[in-house]
Amino acid sequence: MFSRFRTEIKVRPDDIDMNNHVHFSKYMDYVLAARYDQMVNNYKMSMKEFIDIGYNWFVSESNVKYLRQLNLEDTAVVETGLTGYSGAQCTVTFQIYRKSNMKLAAEGSFVYTMVSIKTGRPVAIPEEIIEKYSV
Amino acid sequence: MFSRFRTEIKVRPDDIDMNNHVHFSKYMDYVLAARYDQMVNNYKMSMKEFIDIGYNWFVSESNVKYLRQLNLEDTAVVETGLTGYSGAQCTVTFQIYRKSNMKLAAEGSFVYTMVSIKTGRPVAIPEEIIEKYSV
Amino acid sequence: MFSRFRTEIKVRPDDIDMNNHVHFSKYMDYVLAARYDQMVNNYKMSMKEFIDIGYNWFVSESNVKYLRQLNLEDTAVVETGLTGYSGAQCTVTFQIYRKSNMKLAAEGSFVYTMVSIKTGRPVAIPEEIIEKYSV
Amino acid sequence: MFSRFRTEIKVRPDDIDMNNHVHFSKYMDYVLAARYDQMVNNYKMSMKEFIDIGYNWFVSESNVKYLRQLNLEDTAVVETGLTGYSGAQCTVTFQIYRKSNMKLAAEGSFVYTMVSIKTGRPVAIPEEIIEKYSV
Repeated sequence: MFSRFRTEIKVRPDDIDMNNHVHFSKYMDYVLAARYDQMVNNYKMSMKEFIDIGYNWFVSESNVKYLRQLNLEDTAVVETGLTGYSGAQCTVTFQIYRKSNMKLAAEGSFVYTMVSIKTGRPVAIPEEIIEKYSV
Repeated sequence: MFSRFRTEIKVRPDDIDMNNHVHFSKYMDYVLAARYDQMVNNYKMSMKEFIDIGYNWFVSESNVKYLRQLNLEDTAVVETGLTGYSGAQCTVTFQIYRKSNMKLAAEGSFVYTMVSIKTGRPVAIPEEIIEKYSV
Repeated sequence: MFSRFRTEIKVRPDDIDMNNHVHFSKYMDYVLAARYDQMVNNYKMSMKEFIDIGYNWFVSESNVKYLRQLNLEDTAVVETGLTGYSGAQCTVTFQIYRKSNMKLAAEGSFVYTMVSIKTGRPVAIPEEIIEKYSV
Repeated sequence: MFSRFRTEIKVRPDDIDMNNHVHFSKYMDYVLAARYDQMVNNYKMSMKEFIDIGYNWFVSESNVKYLRQLNLEDTAVVETGLTGYSGAQCTVTFQIYRKSNMKLAAEGSFVYTMVSIKTGRPVAIPEEIIEKYSV
């Protein structure tokens, strides 16, 4: 029902930790970066525009399985897509692949809550936003 | 069966993101910092010593529920403790509290896998390590 | 003429890079964290209050000499103090010491520019702000 | 005498700080990422290969002038090049441009020291390394 999109993210030296691979919490930043990129390029409504109309997305839950390390000189291919929504929340699942061999490095899901910037409270995701995400 | 310990972590300005609160992936770094601190102070075997005897812990899974934001000038109280182990893996659950009012900011669990540095392969957690964690 | 103050910052595991010591750009974040801490505790005007009255400090220049590495389990002692001001700018110099032996790990200077949040333009540092910094 | 090279780095959401622009210390990470990229693509000797033959580069000094902010959705164009070397040290200067209008966002210099991994001591930069950098 919802399309899935891919974004490439080149590993930066400052992502590498003492274990000589991408620091585990950076995987979440890669997913975040992929979502922002896909809002611009695929959903045609950037995070900036989303904020301009008075909304924001907050992460309410994250679940990640770490399967393989990513190293310096690797590029991550981050695939994401909506799998459902209800009330103020939607679920996005993701896979992170190591580009050189397309082996799965991590996978998991995020629950995002749509929030009104004015009130700071969750708001039921409006139909027009669902439509934007239904490309 | 396993004790729980608490570590205080003062929010740093570089932890704050564009939403003016602690960036969500930093919560995982706070749990990591708490575990390292508790290895030194509570389990009496620092990560350094653990690596020196040829082992390392890798994060295999993380599950986080984000409940309340942490802000500049906040201090996080990070409580963690083992809840079980099996083979090469153990599960650590955590709560992150905002120190000023001790309200829960986040909670969740990590699955860690014990790895031999020499082989890079998982190893069954030895009894002496379990004992260290059984304080 | 201006006092110097010290703030302790415990190294976090996520500060460590592939070279197994604190990542060099984190030194700047340690100075930033020290300044924010000293605004609260020494100058008695937190960054929050400073922003509330309509101002912000932007970094215009940074100069750092890196002398010794900081490692996991180290605590940094960050000493900072104003050395002068002119128009919208002030200069802060700093030393970062490794707490265990008080050896100098880094030293340098920052030039900060005071900016009006409303206009986004530099503003001459008002006398009452200089007084705050003259403790 | 030494060529200058350019690397594009897309701003990631986790680079943005509470002031809603790229955090100032991240500029140094962008220069680092550009250098690593140029070692692979322009100097034809990756950091990995450099480490494999027993050497490492440490940052001994950084000087940065911050001129314009970089924002979410910006791409940085990072130009770097050697300007000189002496003994164990070389100087690299850089400019960071905002790609959309090629306005200068920051500029400065780094002093790098070549270190032997075995001894941990500085070593005079060998002629074959200078040659690598003389493309």
